[in-house]
Amino acid sequence: MAGAPVKPTPLLKDELDIVIPTIRNLDFLEMWRPFFEQYHLIIVQDGDPSKTIKVPEGFDYELYNRNDINRILGPKASCISFKDSACRCFGYMVSKKKYIFTIDDDCFVAKDPSDKDINALEQHIKNLLSPATPHFFNTLYDPYREGADFVRGYPFSLREGVPTAVSHGLWLNIPDYDAPTQLVKPRERNSRYVDAVLTIPKGTLFPMCGMNLAFNRELIGPAMYFGLMGDGQPIGRYDDMWAGWCVKVICDHLGWGVKTGLPYIWHSKASNPFVNLKKEYKGIFWQEEIIPFFQSVVLPKECTTVQKCYIELSKLVKEKLGPVDPYFLKLSEAMVTWIEAWDELNSAGEDSNVPAKK
Amino acid sequence: MAGAPVKPTPLLKDELDIVIPTIRNLDFLEMWRPFFEQYHLIIVQDGDPSKTIKVPEGFDYELYNRNDINRILGPKASCISFKDSACRCFGYMVSKKKYIFTIDDDCFVAKDPSDKDINALEQHIKNLLSPATPHFFNTLYDPYREGADFVRGYPFSLREGVPTAVSHGLWLNIPDYDAPTQLVKPRERNSRYVDAVLTIPKGTLFPMCGMNLAFNRELIGPAMYFGLMGDGQPIGRYDDMWAGWCVKVICDHLGWGVKTGLPYIWHSKASNPFVNLKKEYKGIFWQEEIIPFFQSVVLPKECTTVQKCYIELSKLVKEKLGPVDPYFLKLSEAMVTWIEAWDELNSAGEDSNVPAKK
Repeated sequence: MAGAPVKPTPLLKDELDIVIPTIRNLDFLEMWRPFFEQYHLIIVQDGDPSKTIKVPEGFDYELYNRNDINRILGPKASCISFKDSACRCFGYMVSKKKYIFTIDDDCFVAKDPSDKDINALEQHIKNLLSPATPHFFNTLYDPYREGADFVRGYPFSLREGVPTAVSHGLWLNIPDYDAPTQLVKPRERNSRYVDAVLTIPKGTLFPMCGMNLAFNRELIGPAMYFGLMGDGQPIGRYDDMWAGWCVKVICDHLGWGVKTGLPYIWHSKASNPFVNLKKEYKGIFWQEEIIPFFQSVVLPKECTTVQKCYIELSKLVKEKLGPVDPYFLKLSEAMVTWIEAWDELNSAGEDSNVPAKK
Repeated sequence: MAGAPVKPTPLLKDELDIVIPTIRNLDFLEMWRPFFEQYHLIIVQDGDPSKTIKVPEGFDYELYNRNDINRILGPKASCISFKDSACRCFGYMVSKKKYIFTIDDDCFVAKDPSDKDINALEQHIKNLLSPATPHFFNTLYDPYREGADFVRGYPFSLREGVPTAVSHGLWLNIPDYDAPTQLVKPRERNSRYVDAVLTIPKGTLFPMCGMNLAFNRELIGPAMYFGLMGDGQPIGRYDDMWAGWCVKVICDHLGWGVKTGLPYIWHSKASNPFVNLKKEYKGIFWQEEIIPFFQSVVLPKECTTVQKCYIELSKLVKEKLGPVDPYFLKLSEAMVTWIEAWDELNSAGEDSNVPAKK
């Protein structure tokens, strides 16, 4: 209510892990130190396991390389991508926390229009702790933000909202463009700070970017699989997209919300558009079939857990996308392996079945 | 493309009418003079026809009061509300232009964060002239704005977009709240300038406010009926909501887009919440049934024009909402009368069958 004291955002120090796929840039953690130092980090090294990642003093972290993943998952390690940032999803699996924030190592602290450093994590926590409104659009955006509410004509029965499963943050400076757009607009920068958070409506898909992303692992974790990318795979740069399509369809089915908008991070450098084009090439074709597929997915009522939804989805992927390319048969199997591995590491009652390494 | 010269927005002077439901406030037109003077105004007087509305010198306008509406429409005038701003839709009907901008007389020129006066009409024109993207969500909002584009993972086959039928603008200062929210938050003001325009996804309904609204009359005009409100009716303040639900369902069916966001106007004063509560009272109950009804409407393929869609919708309203209250039987009939009157005044080839009055 206007004039009422603003409640401080809880830090969730013991309930949130930060997952980072490799750190090539030492400045990265230094820049985030004031915001990250009090959290536990899970670093998943995407490349050569013989290389050592240096983590500055003062951070609480665990680090996994390919050898660790192979050791922990055994043959099921096949579902985790190698030499690709998609490997980060291993970190979601080994975390024991309720919430995950994942960020790329070329994402720095952005400034808001008043030139103040943006605490991205705090905004993600706000987004995740307040409900979402997927069933009807609110024209003043997130009705739970200070100074906002539901507008005239918004049904009262929907004002409690639903639990928020995902908070998708955005990027100032280098926008998250595909290779063709990067090639055509090499100089375009995103300088528009849009001061909004909104719920993506039920039934609507969106391109989920993994650069600056938080989610409720207890709710949607098992669907946050970043697929098979990178080494030995015909495709890259669709890891987060794949997860986003699966997650959205499952959130819609289970009645949870996905928010997008604030917070911004500063995306410091554009990846090489030529390399990206090679990675994306097949995805650009395939997404024309994948998206109509996800738009038409109807999960049966019996799918009452994320795991059940995801296994059902894997069957549909095999059946409907298998004919597009044999890659989807492999991906469909990897989806099942992922769930098996998730359940193995996250079986009820157990709390420390993964030997962390520091 | 970044660095390319920005194309000026066409003024559409001969293609756009501004429709205003009554002007109680002489400051209103003076304040908008720099932006409105070059356009034709259609003023629809909502109250006592014996009262005279003073329009300052220099404006090109036509003015209709209840006597004019009765004279022009004859018995069909029954579909136009009396003593309620819903009467504005008569202005949509008598206009001969392609585009309509409608605005309330308590809406003034707002300022953007750089303290510059916002040319609301120019932004509406931008919104209407650029395509909409209802089939997939773009996380950087309107991809056709300068400095923005489609993000990675957005299907290329959808990047042409679809025609934009509606541009829904927002309000700084007094937010468009219902009476209960006004009563609970009497001091809340909207001071958040969200620098975004976005397409409301297909299949998602929204609360359309008539305070600051523009649309392509050639596309969607016949569905922009503001219903039966005010004098002799059991309900008020749902005129624009009703139009919004009908319009959105029909736009979804016919493949057109609805945008919301910029431009802002400055909404100067809150209407009386006690009066509003009386007007809204039944609507607050009814919307709990109306919205699920509109969410479930499926228009048959044979409905290939707005008129056909609207007549079909009127039948569904009678069938599905009639049992809620006899009001909806009357409204269903008025919807048919509205279309008949629209077609009478807008028959093909005729261009000046309405005697304007000045």
